[in-house]
Parts: sequence; structure tokens; C-alpha cells
Amino acid sequence: MVSIHDLPTPALVVDLDVLDRNLARMQARCDELGVALRPHVKTHKCVEIGRMQRDLGARGITVATLEEARAFANAGFDDITWAFPVIPGRITEAREIAERTTLRLLVESRAAIEALERERAPFHAWLEVDCGDHRSGVDPESDEAVALARALASSATLIFDGILTHAGHSYRTAGSEGRLRVAREERDVMVRLADRLRSEGVEVRDVSVGSTPGMTAVDHLDKVTEARPGNYAYFDATQVALGSCGAGDCALTVCASVVSSALDHAVVDAGALALSKDVGHGNGRPSMGRLYGDYVAGSLRDDARLTSLSQEHGVVDAPLHVGSRVRILPNHSCLTNACFDRVHAARGEDVVDVWRVRRER
Amino acid sequence: MVSIHDLPTPALVVDLDVLDRNLARMQARCDELGVALRPHVKTHKCVEIGRMQRDLGARGITVATLEEARAFANAGFDDITWAFPVIPGRITEAREIAERTTLRLLVESRAAIEALERERAPFHAWLEVDCGDHRSGVDPESDEAVALARALASSATLIFDGILTHAGHSYRTAGSEGRLRVAREERDVMVRLADRLRSEGVEVRDVSVGSTPGMTAVDHLDKVTEARPGNYAYFDATQVALGSCGAGDCALTVCASVVSSALDHAVVDAGALALSKDVGHGNGRPSMGRLYGDYVAGSLRDDARLTSLSQEHGVVDAPLHVGSRVRILPNHSCLTNACFDRVHAARGEDVVDVWRVRRER
Repeated sequence: MVSIHDLPTPALVVDLDVLDRNLARMQARCDELGVALRPHVKTHKCVEIGRMQRDLGARGITVATLEEARAFANAGFDDITWAFPVIPGRITEAREIAERTTLRLLVESRAAIEALERERAPFHAWLEVDCGDHRSGVDPESDEAVALARALASSATLIFDGILTHAGHSYRTAGSEGRLRVAREERDVMVRLADRLRSEGVEVRDVSVGSTPGMTAVDHLDKVTEARPGNYAYFDATQVALGSCGAGDCALTVCASVVSSALDHAVVDAGALALSKDVGHGNGRPSMGRLYGDYVAGSLRDDARLTSLSQEHGVVDAPLHVGSRVRILPNHSCLTNACFDRVHAARGEDVVDVWRVRRER
Repeated sequence: MVSIHDLPTPALVVDLDVLDRNLARMQARCDELGVALRPHVKTHKCVEIGRMQRDLGARGITVATLEEARAFANAGFDDITWAFPVIPGRITEAREIAERTTLRLLVESRAAIEALERERAPFHAWLEVDCGDHRSGVDPESDEAVALARALASSATLIFDGILTHAGHSYRTAGSEGRLRVAREERDVMVRLADRLRSEGVEVRDVSVGSTPGMTAVDHLDKVTEARPGNYAYFDATQVALGSCGAGDCALTVCASVVSSALDHAVVDAGALALSKDVGHGNGRPSMGRLYGDYVAGSLRDDARLTSLSQEHGVVDAPLHVGSRVRILPNHSCLTNACFDRVHAARGEDVVDVWRVRRER
């Protein structure tokens, strides 16, 4: 049995005990809230973890890219929402995937609907709604929202699945009150729009929300039918800062080696291409990644943090012994995960499996 | 012939006319300065481009990781410097590569020398010197610098190649005066140390410097024997901000599609996993990537920039037509390149080849 202490560094490691607990907790949370869980697999990109989520009760999955959709469809996943505004030039590729699995697309513009209708295929489509993040999605108070929903519902070729949103602004909050406020806004905006559409004669089958900060804070999800959190599988330093979880709930770490040490700093072999340059949550002392005090148990050190990353170098603001190893909690587990081709699945210190990260692009 | 306008987005594209010019110019610059060019291939990670550099006159290559060393050794490159402080736990892997190619390692600590000597293999080793960046490398004014050089030169197993530095602080300068000042400091520190070592009876075969900002600014490199710039192959928005090049010298772009548009912004399908979250050079108006005004010629738009990136979404601060395409100049081409498995080599608008990016990790 290989130990995590013997892996060539930098190495991506998932703590299976923590992962199991995170997956079970979110499924229980969704059951309690009365919504289906459609986990976003862009966080882990592992079919093995997708299967664990499905076995626990998840109803379908969410992906961010067509490459993820293809990889999970090939692995037998049969209900996939591609949660990204449909890319007009890639509709033929989407059709090929949709011929062997249920693939649900996102539309939020007239141009997207027209592009899908030109393909003359029975695409499933969600109407994407902007619940306050102001990135993509239709304004829920606008006439356009009703017009687009009506166009989808009355389309001769498209199948209207319902309305969907992502409260990305939950990542710009602080404390449980902030997360709760955004989660309520997300829910209320969506329920209000669903009611309005129905009163206008548009049938709305599903109402889909979802973010990890929101799902860990929300008080109820009445009239919502599904949730799509993703990060909860791994969590990360950003979620700790937001209060979505504690440090002991973080499942994904990078094992690194100390390669240089000076009076006031050290260098480890985990840089931007092992961690990503995500700067994390704005609140609190800035860092590019946190160091674990205990290699296995997961308590975080306050006396040493990663302060800057170049391509392969990570700079720590404390001296460390050359040749010793550190375990790093990343700021953003989704981006860190995508730095690696494989993740080492560990029980305690033992590596019990190695899974492929489907990061192909 | 596939056109860059028809590639599935996001797509990584290298403009071959610009690449050819960049490679030829840096080789001519090194010839003029009287130093060998040992290009850092971490920028492109393509064996095809490494061969172009070699055919133009490069003497060996530089890599950042053992994975790159392995990929380039397998492709027949026979003189490779691994420009990263040797990772004690991976010396056996390094030895396997060193058995079929000349692999030169970096040491800057007593612990590293001891770890290499325990392996009892004839490793080539550079002494890494800190010329002012204060990341890794031995203090050139210290007694330790002489002691480590002497330990390398007198080792029963190791082969002492000389002294090596990287002026990473050239990236924290502004204007050609700043780049010139750091490049002179880098050169003068290294020449002074080489002279001192020789006066102490330590033979110093090579003196290696190198960074793209420095090489484009330095006035002479007398007594330096080789240079290791890497970014010059592609350049990027950071180098434009530093003044190392103009916008028309940048060879690497990401083609993306507009998927959403509102009154004050638009969303493209190039986010953190297509561009990296490198924030670029601190001077000037912040952006996460620049948009080309002309899809082919390479002039940059001032009225629209990428302002934020999430995993797959890139937000532009101007409305754009859904379904239209944009071409993005990344902040940091090395990190953007490592987001993709392949790069499309284009002459003008025609894709003439597709090269593998050796980003395996």
C-alpha cells in the first residue's frame, strides 16, 4: 500500500472519509429540504465520485463543459444538465451527446433559441435566470423572461425543462447571514418567476437552484424542485472563509515538498500549475493556499501560509526544512483539481485508489 | 483546411508567423550578445516548438518539471536543465531520465547536495543563485555560496556545471529602464560571483541567466555564457505591459464565443480553466485578458476587456453579439497554454497543424 507520504510531489489527494461524509450530508440536506440533488461534477470531474453521488440518491448530474458531458455520458450517466449558456458553434456536438443520453441545455437569449431550433432536434432546455449575480441569465422581472419561457414551451422541437439559476453572488458574502440572505433571494426570485409564468399559462416543470454556500445556509426550499451544488464534495479555503464548512470538512489537498528555505520564507513544489492562481475569499488575511499543521487530521496552521505562486514555485511566509513535506488546502478546489490528471484517493495515510480527473480540453 | 473561425471554442491558437519571428529574433539577440540560448520550454510545452528552437541554434533546453523533462527526453532532446530546486523525493526519477539524456539539476542547499550524493550517480548540477528575486537560490554575497560551489566542484559523484539564476523580479519593474536595471543587476551579480569563485580556486564552467524581460532590455552579457528566456516564444499581455514586446508580437491567443450579452457586459466561454486566473502586471488598467479588435491582425481593443473569470465564464465589460467570436490575449501565456491539451498552429486564418501540449501531471 502506497502512503500519501511517499507520493511524488506535487500530488492531488482526496480524503475519502471526509468525501463520504460530505456527500452523505448534502444528500441528507436535500432530502430534508425536499429537493432533488443534481450535483455539479465540475468540482471533481471524476466518474467514480459521480457514481458515489448517484448511489446516494442524486438525480442526474450537472456539468460545465461539453467535454465533461461527453466523459460522463460515456461512463453511463443518463441525465446531464450542461449548466452553461449554450455555445452556438457547438450545438452539433451537443446533439451527438444528446442522442445517447438526456442532455439538458441552458438558454437565456433569443439567439440561442433560434440556434437550437435550426438544428431541428428534441433538445431539453432550461431557461437560465439571473437571480442577482448579474453574470448570465435573463432578468426575472422582465417581459423578456416570459417571452423566452413561452418561446421554449411552445417550440415545435424543444422540450422546456423549467427555470434554472446560480447564485454566484453567494461567494461575495460574509457570514451565515450573508449566505442565508442570498439563498433566500435566489429561492424567492425563482419561485416568484415560476408563479408568474404559470399565471401566464406557461407550464414550468422544474425550478433549479444551487450553490454550496446557499445550500448550507438556506432555511427552506418550498416550491423549488432541485439543487445543483458542486463544491461541497471537496470544499476549500474559500468555503471555510465563507462559513459553509470547517477546515476539517475539506477533502481535497495537495501534498508538496519543501525545496528551498531562507530566514523568512520557504519554497514548495506547488505553484500556479498545481493550485491555480485563485486568490480566494476577500475577507481575512490574504493567502494563495493554507498549510495543514497535521499532515493527516487537517488542522490549519496560522504561522505559515502560501503568499505567492509562480508557475511551479509556491512561496511560504515561514522557514521550513528542505526535504520535508507539507499538505496544502487550496483556495478553490475546483480549479486545483483541474491542474491534475489524477487524484489519489486516501483512507487516512493509505492511498487506496487513483482516479482520473476528466480535465481534457 | 480548417479555419480558426471554425474551431470549437474555447480553442488555443498560435500564430506561426509571429512565433517564427519571435524565435528567430531571440536567437539573433543571443548570437549578438555572445551567449548560448537554452530556451525555457515551460511556456509552450510542445516538442515541435522545441525542435524549431533547436534548429535555429538553441543549445539545450530548460524545463520546469520532471514531467516536461521526461516528455522532451522521450522526443530526443539530449541536453536538459531542470530549472527548479531539486525535489529530494524525486531524485530516483531524475536519475532514470539522466540515464538517457544529459539532465542538469539545480541545487541551492546542503540538504540537496547530500540527497544527490546519496544516490551515487553522476548528476550534472548548477548552483542556483538569488540575484535579487528572493525566491530561491543562495545569497551570492554569502560564504555559503562559496562553500556550496566548492562542495559541488569537489564532489566525488556530481558534475559542477556552473552558476545559474533567474531574475524573477524583472516582472515587478516598469518601463525599459526598470528591465535594464534588473538585467544588469542579474548579470553583474553573477559575473562577480563567478570571479570570486574562480579566485577561490573553484572552476566555474558556465554562467546562466535568463528572463524574457531582461533579455529584451540588457545592453551586454560579457562573461555570461548562456541565457534561458522562455516566454518570448509567445509573449503575452504582461510582457506588453512591461514593454518587452508590442501587442503584434504576441503569438498565443484563445478563440472564444460570446454566449450571453447584457446592457453593460457580455459572457464568453473562456474562464479560469481556459485562461488561468493570473491577474497580469500591476501597472495600468486591471484586466484578466485583452480582446483583439481584429481577429487576425492582432490590434487590441480598449473599449472591452475581460474583467472577471469564473471556472468557465469570462465576463467582458461591454455588450457583444451572442454567437460572435472573440480572440483573447492572455495575461500569462505560460499558464494559459497549460490549460489545454493541444494548440492549433495557424498561418493567418488557416489551421495548418495541431500540436500536443505536454501538460501531463
